[in-house]
Amino acid sequence: MAQAGKKPDIKALTFDVFGTVVDWRSSIAREAEAFFAPRGVDGIDPVDFAMQWRALYQPAMQQVRSGKIPFTKLDILHRMNLDSLLERHRITGVTEAEADHLNRAWHRLTPWPDSVEGLTRLKTKFILATQSNGNIALMVNMAKHAGLPWDVILGAEVVGHYKPCPDAYINCADALGLPPESCMMTAAHNDDLVAASQQGFRTAFVARPTEYGPGQDKNLKAEHDFDYVAGSFIDLADQLGC
Amino acid sequence: MAQAGKKPDIKALTFDVFGTVVDWRSSIAREAEAFFAPRGVDGIDPVDFAMQWRALYQPAMQQVRSGKIPFTKLDILHRMNLDSLLERHRITGVTEAEADHLNRAWHRLTPWPDSVEGLTRLKTKFILATQSNGNIALMVNMAKHAGLPWDVILGAEVVGHYKPCPDAYINCADALGLPPESCMMTAAHNDDLVAASQQGFRTAFVARPTEYGPGQDKNLKAEHDFDYVAGSFIDLADQLGC
Repeated sequence: MAQAGKKPDIKALTFDVFGTVVDWRSSIAREAEAFFAPRGVDGIDPVDFAMQWRALYQPAMQQVRSGKIPFTKLDILHRMNLDSLLERHRITGVTEAEADHLNRAWHRLTPWPDSVEGLTRLKTKFILATQSNGNIALMVNMAKHAGLPWDVILGAEVVGHYKPCPDAYINCADALGLPPESCMMTAAHNDDLVAASQQGFRTAFVARPTEYGPGQDKNLKAEHDFDYVAGSFIDLADQLGC
Repeated sequence: MAQAGKKPDIKALTFDVFGTVVDWRSSIAREAEAFFAPRGVDGIDPVDFAMQWRALYQPAMQQVRSGKIPFTKLDILHRMNLDSLLERHRITGVTEAEADHLNRAWHRLTPWPDSVEGLTRLKTKFILATQSNGNIALMVNMAKHAGLPWDVILGAEVVGHYKPCPDAYINCADALGLPPESCMMTAAHNDDLVAASQQGFRTAFVARPTEYGPGQDKNLKAEHDFDYVAGSFIDLADQLGC
């Protein structure tokens, strides 16, 4: 469904990462399980713990978006949320090093099976930029861990705003020295793509129907007229002739 | 000459780029020659033009460092300097598109012969970050053009300061989530390494004795007790066991 015509060529693909490129739910559950086991914590399902941790993500960023707190890196927001969650579940006796290691589970997320191959093919033709709410160190460490072949780490810490604020997208295109029409936001989330589109970005929806597990009830499919709709990054590479 | 002992492991190499990784002098001269030829400009040696353009680089950044002008991307400083130079040499009738193309010659610089191989080897063991005064788009386009395998584009536009301001180095380590002692500044310029060292960075000198041509009279060798001294990135990769 490429929108051919008068638009300039697509030069850069800008990527949502959590959920779109990596499977945070399984990865965090696995790390939580490894954290619980030696402590004998057995009252919490590790998958539920992952979902509860992620549920605190948007409210934490909303404090930044609303101006209630100044811009704060996601590593720090994740840690505040982790501390709340440990307290909620009355998990005590955790050392600073242990809490930090668990917090950095977000640096060690596992990619979806098609991500590395698909991105590697897309990189032959386009600039690949992260446009995630994750901070720079998180994105760099994840890329080293998972083999993600980014050309440039952009996103919240570089552009100074959390998505879906308009400036998050505008500043991203500006950093690349490109008009928004030459950038294509690539995400598994309809709202991210709609927000990018409102700032002039092209859009590609990549379906991740199990991001939230088998009971997922949103973002199961593209709900708007996006430029591309794909089932994987390999499918997207095929459609883009990479 | 590794400083073994109590320092933490080196996790990231942060790179000066102009002169250290790429040969700006020959590259700009080649592009200037291609620009002059169809115009019949023959009163200026293209190499002299490249040297004159580069000579305006530090004074332009100094206006930012001193606070005389707000932070301005290098692409814009390069363009201001190019416009001055065209005026100085009375080169007229240049369209906006032609001037922009010549200005983007800095996005198309050629790497030194050992750069791609050496960096590719270094990448297997370390995070490779640009810590250049070049802006993001310049660095990304150069990397795509030249095949430079950066993990992350940092440098002036991300950290908000031009080297050798202390904050340029401090903010770089902070963005990587690392103590400065885990970062090694890698450059062909003694002053850059001294400034990085003063902020706690490790240091690696990579000699580029023809950066300014056969008559180069400074930075011919390491003038301080840097952690590593190498003749190329391949030599540095050998020394670092990559």
